[in-house]
Amino acid sequence: MDTYSSDAHTEFRDALIAAGLLIPTGVDGLYGRSGVFEDVVERFNDLISACGRGDGAEVMRFPPALARSHFERSEYLKSFPHLAGTVHSFMGDERAHQSMLRRLEEGEDWADGQMATNVVMTPAACYPIYPTVAERGPLGADGALVDVYSYCFRHEPSLDPARMQLFRMREYVRVGTPDQVMDFRQGWLERGRALMESLALPVAIDLANDPFFGRAGRMLSANQRDQGLKFELLIPIASAEKPTACLSFNYHQDHFGLLWDIRTPDGEVAYTACVGFGMERVALALFRHHGLDVKAWPASVRAALWG
Amino acid sequence: MDTYSSDAHTEFRDALIAAGLLIPTGVDGLYGRSGVFEDVVERFNDLISACGRGDGAEVMRFPPALARSHFERSEYLKSFPHLAGTVHSFMGDERAHQSMLRRLEEGEDWADGQMATNVVMTPAACYPIYPTVAERGPLGADGALVDVYSYCFRHEPSLDPARMQLFRMREYVRVGTPDQVMDFRQGWLERGRALMESLALPVAIDLANDPFFGRAGRMLSANQRDQGLKFELLIPIASAEKPTACLSFNYHQDHFGLLWDIRTPDGEVAYTACVGFGMERVALALFRHHGLDVKAWPASVRAALWG
Repeated sequence: MDTYSSDAHTEFRDALIAAGLLIPTGVDGLYGRSGVFEDVVERFNDLISACGRGDGAEVMRFPPALARSHFERSEYLKSFPHLAGTVHSFMGDERAHQSMLRRLEEGEDWADGQMATNVVMTPAACYPIYPTVAERGPLGADGALVDVYSYCFRHEPSLDPARMQLFRMREYVRVGTPDQVMDFRQGWLERGRALMESLALPVAIDLANDPFFGRAGRMLSANQRDQGLKFELLIPIASAEKPTACLSFNYHQDHFGLLWDIRTPDGEVAYTACVGFGMERVALALFRHHGLDVKAWPASVRAALWG
Repeated sequence: MDTYSSDAHTEFRDALIAAGLLIPTGVDGLYGRSGVFEDVVERFNDLISACGRGDGAEVMRFPPALARSHFERSEYLKSFPHLAGTVHSFMGDERAHQSMLRRLEEGEDWADGQMATNVVMTPAACYPIYPTVAERGPLGADGALVDVYSYCFRHEPSLDPARMQLFRMREYVRVGTPDQVMDFRQGWLERGRALMESLALPVAIDLANDPFFGRAGRMLSANQRDQGLKFELLIPIASAEKPTACLSFNYHQDHFGLLWDIRTPDGEVAYTACVGFGMERVALALFRHHGLDVKAWPASVRAALWG
């Protein structure tokens, strides 16, 4: 959770709500979106599709949750236990139901009787694709390229409208040899920058790390930076000093290949990389830099989005 | 959970998976969708928009979860405790994290230490709109008409591909006087039938009830039927004898108006109604009746969807 410049965050969030673009729910990081906000997200999503069209990615769309067995095997809990969301349900009888309703009525904690289901919130859009690709057996010579898009959940309530608990992530994921995967990431670093510059947004690309949990996590973060595994495309949104990651370019090396036993045609462990687009963050960057009235956005930006 | 004709369910599900339209995850009712499947859902979604365009509904889009306080107040737990999904997170320190990982490693239940967050899975797309409309104060003379669309969760693992745990629901919701609300429902009963017939699907409209929990629930179901509050548009999907509800037309009377204190201009409690489209179910009905290859669908159906 951010502890700095919460005034700027609150101010921008209030402006978005006053303009009707976000709809408050009483929970920080959980908002409804207006039709205009959604239209911006959809148009940007189409722009990504146009940008990646020539590559022939396979489209897969998963709901905002994945199988618990897949989640457990993903090792997400090792690195980001604090961000994950598990889905729980009531599995009792009528007596247990009466007791739950009584506790709800009396303002007690009724939810501690909920039992874990086999479903876990998707933490990043690409998580369901690794077991799916692995299931198909060894890769062909061209490896695999997958196009995914879903709502993701991260438990990090924040006043920063650019740090939502439920947000959408579009991703292209490359699976193959180290060379195939590095080429993919390098290509998208350049494409991503050009794409965002075509929207007249001020961008910087920088080395980054994931928010690993705890003291051991600090070492993982340092390693990730030392090896140049993660880059982010940053745009100032609520804060100028601390710009927001809107795209990320991740080289996982053989992490997912090993976890899921994904193999290249010659039996080597597959490498993976992905480019991820934070859809709400890009929309917010557009509203921040071009104003809350989309009709008054620069003609070039309107042409890029609405054609 | 259905206990009948599970062979037909499994057979249809297997065919959808073999054709690559659904992607299995190992959890019943949780599937990925292919690009083709998604395209059918999107085209049908556009068709609904075209059908409702003249009414000037306000578009609101919510993530697949709602605020816990809103969920608690909605009384969903009274009627459908078994279907609800609450989102839980790890909120412990590094020691608790180590203990969680050890339990995961040893195949014990690691998830019982998860704590309830302020976020609950959306059970029906319209749930977040009632507090939103209420927040705005008394309605204008025209009442309110809202267009919503989101993933919904219901904990009911099933072999029937038409009974998913995570599925999308598009809805129009009318809020106003009893007359406004009844006119709306009657209009959509006719429109909904015409819309589905334009897709060359065999439809029947019938009285229905919600799956209320427990013995008391049986009485609620009977009341709902006696008063004609819920109609469903049914299409045979996996089973011919037991067709599947693909659209529903719900008259809530003053249930949500009272719960959220929504008022008409003259201070009366507002009435509400909604029409809901089960997006995956409609797509499955199309695949069932026109075949798994969209290119071979009847020309009239292709024209209705792809123009």
